[in-house]
Amino acid sequence: MKKYNIIKIFDDKSESIEDFVISETILTISINGNELASLVCSKENIENLIYGYLFTSGLINKVSDIDDLNIIHCEKDNKWLAAVKIDNENIKDYQKIQTSGCGNGKLLYKNDIEEQIITSDNTQIKSSDIFLLMKDFNNNSEIFIKTGGVHSAAIADTKKILCFREDIGRHNAIDKVAGELFFNNINLKDKILITSGRVPAEIIYKTIFAKIPIIISRSAPTGSAIELARKANITLIGFARGKKMNIYSSQQRIIIS
Amino acid sequence: MKKYNIIKIFDDKSESIEDFVISETILTISINGNELASLVCSKENIENLIYGYLFTSGLINKVSDIDDLNIIHCEKDNKWLAAVKIDNENIKDYQKIQTSGCGNGKLLYKNDIEEQIITSDNTQIKSSDIFLLMKDFNNNSEIFIKTGGVHSAAIADTKKILCFREDIGRHNAIDKVAGELFFNNINLKDKILITSGRVPAEIIYKTIFAKIPIIISRSAPTGSAIELARKANITLIGFARGKKMNIYSSQQRIIIS
Repeated sequence: MKKYNIIKIFDDKSESIEDFVISETILTISINGNELASLVCSKENIENLIYGYLFTSGLINKVSDIDDLNIIHCEKDNKWLAAVKIDNENIKDYQKIQTSGCGNGKLLYKNDIEEQIITSDNTQIKSSDIFLLMKDFNNNSEIFIKTGGVHSAAIADTKKILCFREDIGRHNAIDKVAGELFFNNINLKDKILITSGRVPAEIIYKTIFAKIPIIISRSAPTGSAIELARKANITLIGFARGKKMNIYSSQQRIIIS
Repeated sequence: MKKYNIIKIFDDKSESIEDFVISETILTISINGNELASLVCSKENIENLIYGYLFTSGLINKVSDIDDLNIIHCEKDNKWLAAVKIDNENIKDYQKIQTSGCGNGKLLYKNDIEEQIITSDNTQIKSSDIFLLMKDFNNNSEIFIKTGGVHSAAIADTKKILCFREDIGRHNAIDKVAGELFFNNINLKDKILITSGRVPAEIIYKTIFAKIPIIISRSAPTGSAIELARKANITLIGFARGKKMNIYSSQQRIIIS
């Protein structure tokens, strides 16, 4: 965040004020010397973003899958470079596809998505607890309140938020929370992903690779996201606001109460 | 848009209903046989998107710069392919950079941005007319009202909206309106670009290449966007809602009244 002098207009009156504005940086991730993606992102928690991006792309499954990680910050042009070394065997099955995401250029797509499907229905949550989680989630959003310019993401268990992050890109915010918990070896198989942003299919891919069974958004999903979530047995909830929400798939994990 | 059967929850009640959900498709643009970008986008007005993307990337300046354009729709996997032929001389100065955009993978970046700077201050608009334009803009958003899942963009003169488009990606919605007017040889040097979405630097690049002097957003700009708009003498307005707005740069084009 940075302060700028701006002109504020209200009806036919104007005043010069200082206002907070969100800043962006560029993170370029290379794997074994090849550029993988450049993400326009917020500069906080860059390391979480790197781990989360690789994890939710299905490239790594445990922290030790990374043989070496070097992060360089070029202050002059406000860019970050992350040079990652991983075992070549891990990446040979992937093909690159483009995403629609704020801050994301490429998604790694594995053809055998069926093998990644979450079959466990053990995690269940009450609808009334979802309303409480969403209230907490909205109260957490500090940067948004100051700048109106970021997306938020959180990972929660059925009772409380475990990690909350904000980023200029909604994909990045998700990668930051997933990366934080992944780095700390926390199992996500019984957790809930919360996002402020719209949910296209790419975000369901991230949910699948992170093995998170439930995703809740304040906003709308796309048709492809619904179809993928149904195929992968992921509970997709949208428009979770106040005392309302829509369940688009795998309703069995939600206890209406 | 497509209808899906979903579960609607309100407090502790649930009902099964049919609801409209936004659909996405993938448009891959290749230039002279090389893949340029794959955009996750809404399927409407694909041709506008192609022209607009090339124009607001600074790749073409007039419709006749395109020697050949072939658009193929693969219904099976719901993808569009656009094979563009343009004079090689036009593209040799460009380098690809990644964008933060919804629906955009790459932006073409020309190093001599200073040559593109808009110096004309002839276009001026009253703040009261901006409030009227924004009211019209909000009323226009049909798909959003049904699905809550798209961004809108418009191009207006100082009195009325000339073209309005919606897309799952905010960059795409802008490319669609710019592409429509570009294709019809309408000069944009005295026009106003309106967007529902946040404004990062990439969208200011698009505004510069389209030579549009004023951009108005319902949402927040980023710090880099403000800095680029100030350098390029583009009037950047954010948070234009109701009777309020913030002017971040080149205030001389706004008459407060």
